[in-house]
Amino acid sequence: MENENKLHDIRHSLAHLLAIAVLKHDPRALLGVGPVIENGVYYDFLLSGPLKESDLSSIEKNMKKLVGSRLDFTGKEISKKDGEELFKDQPFKLELLAEFATEDKTLTAYTAGTFTDLCRGGHVDNTSEINADGFKLERIAGAYWKGDQKNQQLTRIYGLAFETKEALDNLLRMQEEAVKRDHKKLGRELDLFLIDEKVGKGLPMWTPRGTAVKFELEKFTRDLERKYGYEHVNTPYLGAEELYRTSGHLDHYTANMYAPIDMDGDKFYLRPMACPHHIRMYQRKPWSYKDLPIRYAEIADYNRYEKSGELMGMIRVRKFQLTDGHLFVTPEGLKEEFKRVCNMIVEGIKGLGLLDIVSYRFSKRSLDNKEKYYPDDNLWNHAEELMKEALDELGLPYVTALDEAAFYGPKLDVQAKNVHGKEDTLFTAQMDFLLPQKFEMEYVDDHGERKRPVMIHRSTIGCLERTFGFLIEHYGGAFPVWLSPTQVVVVPVGEKFEEYASGVSKQLKEEGLRVELDSSSETLGKKIRNAKLMKTPYMVVIGQQEIDSGRLTIESRDRGQLKDILLTDLIATLKEEIRDKKLQK
Amino acid sequence: MENENKLHDIRHSLAHLLAIAVLKHDPRALLGVGPVIENGVYYDFLLSGPLKESDLSSIEKNMKKLVGSRLDFTGKEISKKDGEELFKDQPFKLELLAEFATEDKTLTAYTAGTFTDLCRGGHVDNTSEINADGFKLERIAGAYWKGDQKNQQLTRIYGLAFETKEALDNLLRMQEEAVKRDHKKLGRELDLFLIDEKVGKGLPMWTPRGTAVKFELEKFTRDLERKYGYEHVNTPYLGAEELYRTSGHLDHYTANMYAPIDMDGDKFYLRPMACPHHIRMYQRKPWSYKDLPIRYAEIADYNRYEKSGELMGMIRVRKFQLTDGHLFVTPEGLKEEFKRVCNMIVEGIKGLGLLDIVSYRFSKRSLDNKEKYYPDDNLWNHAEELMKEALDELGLPYVTALDEAAFYGPKLDVQAKNVHGKEDTLFTAQMDFLLPQKFEMEYVDDHGERKRPVMIHRSTIGCLERTFGFLIEHYGGAFPVWLSPTQVVVVPVGEKFEEYASGVSKQLKEEGLRVELDSSSETLGKKIRNAKLMKTPYMVVIGQQEIDSGRLTIESRDRGQLKDILLTDLIATLKEEIRDKKLQK
Repeated sequence: MENENKLHDIRHSLAHLLAIAVLKHDPRALLGVGPVIENGVYYDFLLSGPLKESDLSSIEKNMKKLVGSRLDFTGKEISKKDGEELFKDQPFKLELLAEFATEDKTLTAYTAGTFTDLCRGGHVDNTSEINADGFKLERIAGAYWKGDQKNQQLTRIYGLAFETKEALDNLLRMQEEAVKRDHKKLGRELDLFLIDEKVGKGLPMWTPRGTAVKFELEKFTRDLERKYGYEHVNTPYLGAEELYRTSGHLDHYTANMYAPIDMDGDKFYLRPMACPHHIRMYQRKPWSYKDLPIRYAEIADYNRYEKSGELMGMIRVRKFQLTDGHLFVTPEGLKEEFKRVCNMIVEGIKGLGLLDIVSYRFSKRSLDNKEKYYPDDNLWNHAEELMKEALDELGLPYVTALDEAAFYGPKLDVQAKNVHGKEDTLFTAQMDFLLPQKFEMEYVDDHGERKRPVMIHRSTIGCLERTFGFLIEHYGGAFPVWLSPTQVVVVPVGEKFEEYASGVSKQLKEEGLRVELDSSSETLGKKIRNAKLMKTPYMVVIGQQEIDSGRLTIESRDRGQLKDILLTDLIATLKEEIRDKKLQK
Repeated sequence: MENENKLHDIRHSLAHLLAIAVLKHDPRALLGVGPVIENGVYYDFLLSGPLKESDLSSIEKNMKKLVGSRLDFTGKEISKKDGEELFKDQPFKLELLAEFATEDKTLTAYTAGTFTDLCRGGHVDNTSEINADGFKLERIAGAYWKGDQKNQQLTRIYGLAFETKEALDNLLRMQEEAVKRDHKKLGRELDLFLIDEKVGKGLPMWTPRGTAVKFELEKFTRDLERKYGYEHVNTPYLGAEELYRTSGHLDHYTANMYAPIDMDGDKFYLRPMACPHHIRMYQRKPWSYKDLPIRYAEIADYNRYEKSGELMGMIRVRKFQLTDGHLFVTPEGLKEEFKRVCNMIVEGIKGLGLLDIVSYRFSKRSLDNKEKYYPDDNLWNHAEELMKEALDELGLPYVTALDEAAFYGPKLDVQAKNVHGKEDTLFTAQMDFLLPQKFEMEYVDDHGERKRPVMIHRSTIGCLERTFGFLIEHYGGAFPVWLSPTQVVVVPVGEKFEEYASGVSKQLKEEGLRVELDSSSETLGKKIRNAKLMKTPYMVVIGQQEIDSGRLTIESRDRGQLKDILLTDLIATLKEEIRDKKLQK
């Protein structure tokens, strides 16, 4: 905590230095606010003219000078009147002053050198505590005063600030890597998906190369689900009003739903979730306790209302496919089944190669906030207890998050940090006592009595779009062989080797591999560069030498050039890498 | 034609006899109309009381008596005034009379025995020409006068009528078979799909057993498409307004579309077709003539506005999946590519086992109706010529249908008769010159000039829902092994054989077969009956004898009991039948 405070004080102090340097650059600049943010600080200004990139570096240089000049920070309480005098030329500060005064806040002003700012405090005592190499002005952006479009637009200057140069360099490296790995950029460069405004914002289209990955993810999902005893179903992306009235979505979830569509007098919704469909599937016939658990899986179409401004590539979309599933379980079988669900999810994570970067979060309700949750203490206690036992028995290294359960029951989230260092929920498993009740679900127990099953909502590998976006960034587009859109490119070094190359390509295809024959008129160098740009794991180069020897020259994406390889050995290697879902050794 | 007229006259005459018999049953009955329809005739009556099934047979008996009494039919022209006198007690007839008179029609009345009807004529001369065993009263239904809900409801009596008893019996057999094979009935009995009004009318859900068939159909489709050089893409079931503005759907196709959905200020439509999406996919990058043809395939979600009353099972639905595809072709390559498309479609038909029951229809525009078609004579002549050449070169036995082309080009439809004897379009291939123009599509030819590609719309095995419905009826639910939801049921004859049975089941599963182990407590007879009811192609019965001998007893759906079979031989047989997509030998 001490370090965090220190870092905060450094960043806050730098905001003041930024203001001083900007005022030096533009003495008529009007000052907005300058808060500490993640990784640094920003300050908003109303400038008398536009700011160029070169101005930014001169401002940064002046800030470093100010750091070197060992300025003291001193603060004091002021009256509203003092403030009005101090900031008489700064209308935004006067506005803040007036607000703070009505809120009965204690007013303070801090001074460094000749510059005084209206400020809550939290600074270094002297700028000598700041490492001049630990900060960097990052970029300029527009921002409305108080974030309101109706107000004046100000110029916001962002700065990155850390205690050490190493910490700053780390962040810069991570940012650089994140830019390179950005799934929207790679999606375009590697021709994996496109978002075409004419087709619709927030509605990505999977190109042939992207669809090849999608099919692999789908197959992986379904094979895993089959292994764990799921039955596959297929249900429509629309649902009648009554369905979502019964489920409660129309009472609690409409903010995420689109307006209904009239179909010859009936109202239909683009479905936000598939749970009610799977419940109705269950209810098509009577069940005995011997039939349970019933496990339905579906790569299900979902629709969520999203504002245009919040859409992002494959991560935040308006229509997506969830590797969805619902289990209907006897209360007695719940713990064992929940463990199976966890095991399956972990197997999925392993298959995708994400085991090292995920963490597990067990979300419970908070007793301080009971009105947020479905009101049945016994059920909650039982479910949380049982889920804890299951997780402990599995030895999953989870953290507990209070007050983050779903309305209808506790849940387990699998979290992963993306390339920007931000944590996302990739997969989830939730217990639900509520929907079975709302739909009056039943099974017959061993005494012939009607009982209510418990429901588990879970995803196998999450939402295909989001998981794909995440995988693109995680692998920087260099997918393991099993997920590579093209697994092998066969490159004849000249026209006369095309027939032989085409034979090799055919043999590889017959093994079920995704192969491309590059018989374009480009040079060999260009062909190899192209394949590398597309991050194809293997290139097979065919020339006279290869034909004479019957052995191939391979350019491996990850292992460099490999000589004198038999085609059968290449096939065996590829098949092994595909089977094991691993990166090249 | 003569026979057809004869049959028409017989049916029309029977309508009169039906009226006579009904008037005998209920002298106060008021008469509506009694037209000839497919397979027979109906007559509408306003009766003074409800009609029972037993009434129907007494009416039919009286009709037969009338046939035997050798009544003559005589007709004459009448004036409006004559008619008003003749039908003074029949208000519906008076209403018709008034209408016909304003339309300046010649009025005629026909008499048989003592009964005279207002009627256009077309009767047998004498009822002795009617075969009394060639007709049968079929059923009673309600019908509004003139088909208008605001009018009075009448009782409609349907009769089947043919020249011979054989013809009637044939139809009755076909109807009986159609009822047994009805896909809605079998869909429920074999637990293949369900339509749940709570989820939504016209929105079928595929159960686990149905989804197994769906996955096979999808795999079959995609394998076939891969073989023919298609690339798979995936595009959303929504499209922005501008997309369908450009394509012209909003000008010509809105009757089949749902109202738009607002997404944060933009209007989106549930897509009626995927062509615009595939066009935008094509347009994501520039293409050279060397890249063409570009072939995109997708099992694409489609939405069509359908009235509640017109929905039918899997055949007429509001949301469906088309095994869709679009090809972008150079004009020079069009004929060859069109032939490839036809070859692929025929291969699909063969795979589904439908080759013997389909016919091919080549739909051209009509020169008498040119305003219905995209106006470019040269293009039309060229396209129709080229399509004819392609079909002739392939030797496909097609019929030509004038004035049935699409607005944008000629097409080939593959027609099949369903179990009701009705012809449906299952698959289709269409040439399109219009959309490439509307979207300003391009490629660069061998002189570096920008050219416009031609588009082919086609489906591989049609719409999955409809094809599934059709296949259910075609096979009467007894699918070939590759399409069977469950391929083998393993049945232990008692509890102590369960372990061995479970081992057999596991081995079959490891071969990728869909296997069910029936370890319920039912009797052996009941278990076998259950498997037969579900039309499972193979049952494996496991008892002491099988364990001792290491050989299995098989109950085959199509070949009866098979004894002393090695598991490896069963597996080989199954795999062969699956590979060849055939019914059991």
